[in-house]
Amino acid sequence: MASLAAYFAGTKLPRGPPSTSTLPLSATQAPIHNTSPAELEAAWADFVAIVGQENVSTSQDQRVSHAKSEWSAHNPPASEPIPFCIVYPATTEEVSQIMKVCHRRKIPVTAYCGGTSLEGHFAPTRGGICIDFGRMDKVLALHKEDLDVVVQPAVGWELLNESLSKDGLFFPPDPGPGARIGGMIGTGCSGTNAYRYGTMREWVLSLTVVLADGTIIKTRQRPRKSSAGYDLTKVFIGSEGTLGLVTEATLKLTVKPATTSVAVCSFGSIRQAADCVQRVVGTGVPVAAVEILDDEMMKCINQAGQTARTWQEKPTLFFKFAGTPKGVQEQIDTVKQMAKLSGSTGFDFARSQEEQLDLWSARKEALWSTMAVKRDGDKVWTTDVAVPISRLPDLIEETKTDMSKSGLYGTIVGHVGDGNFHAILLYNDAERKIAEEVVHRIVKRALEMEGTVTGEHGVGLIKRDYLDHELGSAAVDVMRKMKQSFDPLCILNCDKVVRVQKPAKGEVSEW
Amino acid sequence: MASLAAYFAGTKLPRGPPSTSTLPLSATQAPIHNTSPAELEAAWADFVAIVGQENVSTSQDQRVSHAKSEWSAHNPPASEPIPFCIVYPATTEEVSQIMKVCHRRKIPVTAYCGGTSLEGHFAPTRGGICIDFGRMDKVLALHKEDLDVVVQPAVGWELLNESLSKDGLFFPPDPGPGARIGGMIGTGCSGTNAYRYGTMREWVLSLTVVLADGTIIKTRQRPRKSSAGYDLTKVFIGSEGTLGLVTEATLKLTVKPATTSVAVCSFGSIRQAADCVQRVVGTGVPVAAVEILDDEMMKCINQAGQTARTWQEKPTLFFKFAGTPKGVQEQIDTVKQMAKLSGSTGFDFARSQEEQLDLWSARKEALWSTMAVKRDGDKVWTTDVAVPISRLPDLIEETKTDMSKSGLYGTIVGHVGDGNFHAILLYNDAERKIAEEVVHRIVKRALEMEGTVTGEHGVGLIKRDYLDHELGSAAVDVMRKMKQSFDPLCILNCDKVVRVQKPAKGEVSEW
Repeated sequence: MASLAAYFAGTKLPRGPPSTSTLPLSATQAPIHNTSPAELEAAWADFVAIVGQENVSTSQDQRVSHAKSEWSAHNPPASEPIPFCIVYPATTEEVSQIMKVCHRRKIPVTAYCGGTSLEGHFAPTRGGICIDFGRMDKVLALHKEDLDVVVQPAVGWELLNESLSKDGLFFPPDPGPGARIGGMIGTGCSGTNAYRYGTMREWVLSLTVVLADGTIIKTRQRPRKSSAGYDLTKVFIGSEGTLGLVTEATLKLTVKPATTSVAVCSFGSIRQAADCVQRVVGTGVPVAAVEILDDEMMKCINQAGQTARTWQEKPTLFFKFAGTPKGVQEQIDTVKQMAKLSGSTGFDFARSQEEQLDLWSARKEALWSTMAVKRDGDKVWTTDVAVPISRLPDLIEETKTDMSKSGLYGTIVGHVGDGNFHAILLYNDAERKIAEEVVHRIVKRALEMEGTVTGEHGVGLIKRDYLDHELGSAAVDVMRKMKQSFDPLCILNCDKVVRVQKPAKGEVSEW
Repeated sequence: MASLAAYFAGTKLPRGPPSTSTLPLSATQAPIHNTSPAELEAAWADFVAIVGQENVSTSQDQRVSHAKSEWSAHNPPASEPIPFCIVYPATTEEVSQIMKVCHRRKIPVTAYCGGTSLEGHFAPTRGGICIDFGRMDKVLALHKEDLDVVVQPAVGWELLNESLSKDGLFFPPDPGPGARIGGMIGTGCSGTNAYRYGTMREWVLSLTVVLADGTIIKTRQRPRKSSAGYDLTKVFIGSEGTLGLVTEATLKLTVKPATTSVAVCSFGSIRQAADCVQRVVGTGVPVAAVEILDDEMMKCINQAGQTARTWQEKPTLFFKFAGTPKGVQEQIDTVKQMAKLSGSTGFDFARSQEEQLDLWSARKEALWSTMAVKRDGDKVWTTDVAVPISRLPDLIEETKTDMSKSGLYGTIVGHVGDGNFHAILLYNDAERKIAEEVVHRIVKRALEMEGTVTGEHGVGLIKRDYLDHELGSAAVDVMRKMKQSFDPLCILNCDKVVRVQKPAKGEVSEW
């Protein structure tokens, strides 16, 4: 490497007024990258030297598949680049070397793990390269007595739980199928287990992170808790690959409950179902999960025919229970009574492992069932918002009315114990604008109810500009200052979470 | 306010190489404050205009009591200043105005809430002023159905729980008596309930924060979870007043359990007790808390005579149980069996509310009982570390041997389910050095066992220089960059968490 002076020569940095705590967009200088073909080709040679030629791909298929996905709501304009190449590192050290190359050359980098994100998280808006963590998929160490496990980012949560199961252990966060630890950390995800167990933020003890300039840090050792210094672990959770690249994670584990069960109950209205949830939550019954599916979703599930039974086409709650056999039975009895008081029109609970799978199958098939009723050429848009739990029935009812008026077909499934729900909308190319408007109104409605624009998916590109409305511009300006601090050249997943450049006219929807 | 140019004129900023992700101490310029008498007097007039003369104190008593405490391990050198004045704001807006004055005038600020911190957290190393949140002690809004409460920073956790109790609600974090929400956020504290319920980090939904330059931000609205943007809430939790001042907090609540109980069991050795804990934790019995007191601590408690019974002077576990009556009984039966298998020499559980208080009294009196055996002129040093749970018995045993060899009197009480313990050391002025060395070795031992230098007290001044050993200097350099980003003039609790100036020769103990 040349001298430090040469190293930084010509670096123009975005910078706000020097002594303030925030960085307003108006004071931000647009990032200056170098994505000229010559630079990228020179970088390619560097990457080959680091990971070997077999682990750097320039195949068109790979480049396209790492730029977008079918299930993401991001609809890239024709002008949006695809990555110049995909680099597949095997170690933290290799990731560090790759980042040093990109930092020196000012080449933007997008990280890729399971690829299941929904809001355009890995769209390579500035071109550059993609780092795919696919080869870093090992469980490195299991500490049974300490209830923790050390994993690489491409470990999937489903396989992890399969392997932990042998030791009677369990990692609770359960986002969409296919999601992997790296991306789960990036989005700060959760899932059906969050009501009882909390989100990804509660289940990561420590991270090894490669920073924008290639520096390797470890955020924490392995104790279950610590008050030592700033909580760097939490800084990276939910940062969507914009502050650093996670190359190793130490995850908290818990003990698999002795018994589990499932119950399903239907109601005449969303409000009755919500009333039941309020009773359960309000008395602290420690259910493992409580999910709501709306009448449309139940219809879809019947129509798709992927489950063994025929379901009542009504708002339906799905409960999971976990604990000792006696404890689970007590919970079921209590919830049954509460469901009755709230006007439940049916309450089924599982008497065997088989019945559990059977009852839970409808919840499990929810997304796929909606996909199954797609018309030819239809796309799917899965959005999520969260509000204080008492506001969820209002939000769901207003959203159902709105979706129905819009003419689009949509279903709703919610982590109702957390005040979080997903709307799954079907639309074709001609209806894209209508879908955008429906989602816009869902977001707006959630914010007006003191909610958040996303409970568990992250903002990516699609919801980035809503952050100002949720938090106020000063809070976003603090996030921008953090981004500048961690990644002054803005090479890590540029344009995600916060803007670093003023939008073009008409680019941001009116509020 | 004058023009922006005038506003920033003469500002010399600490700054590392501009495009890197870290700020090494070697690249940090020492902060330049202005604490000349004239400047401070001019600022005093500004404060009087903001909060009224009755809310700005320059009394010597107030100034001294806001600089140090009897229970803190910080032993200020004679050269350490005391604050010029104490300002008592009543609103977020007033705090913002005060910070704008200090930012403009480059006056250092230390925040003060309950004053119960142990590691020199509010030592005014650079002089300047102290903001005492004492007047901001209101519960602003209780949202029963959403299980959250909005409070000001000087609300104490004990009074809060008393008031929540009427509505059957409960806020779990339970640090030392007298602690208040502001400081609890600052240290990322926890307590006996952390094993079951998690720490402060898990119970704060949102914060209103005044930044170093007076900017007011709100980190989040009220939903139970969110994935929208960087987790600013968590950035401030555990930041010890160095990144911003918390003026309002929305706290998560849970439902008070229907029944609670307590059990106490003694063992022939720390290792047997730890074996019992491993069984309980390893099978996932959902006990509400599990605490360990060593034989010396039990002796102390008998000697102090503040409890109704005489205790076995052996390593003793204290369990709390919570749940339905049936659930609690089941937990007690299970734990009793496990204690027996691990060689327990006695197992008492409470059959009434009175017996609960009686059994828990020993745990409650632990600290005071150690204080009660102080010799004339003795001081107390309470330190805490945490390690992966399997290493706790080694750590406790080695520490007991070490304390006993040192000639100092010391007791141990631990949140054993979290791998966290406190050593409470008595020492007189002549023994200060010995105490420092004992604590140094406890910290070193914990780090060698993959632990942390503090599980719940924070690093303050005393443990700041250990962070490099725990996390490596690159991680600390990232923290320093964050500090610079949030507080470029380094006016907020300067010198805490990270150094911003090279230490004098001999200032840092050898590792």
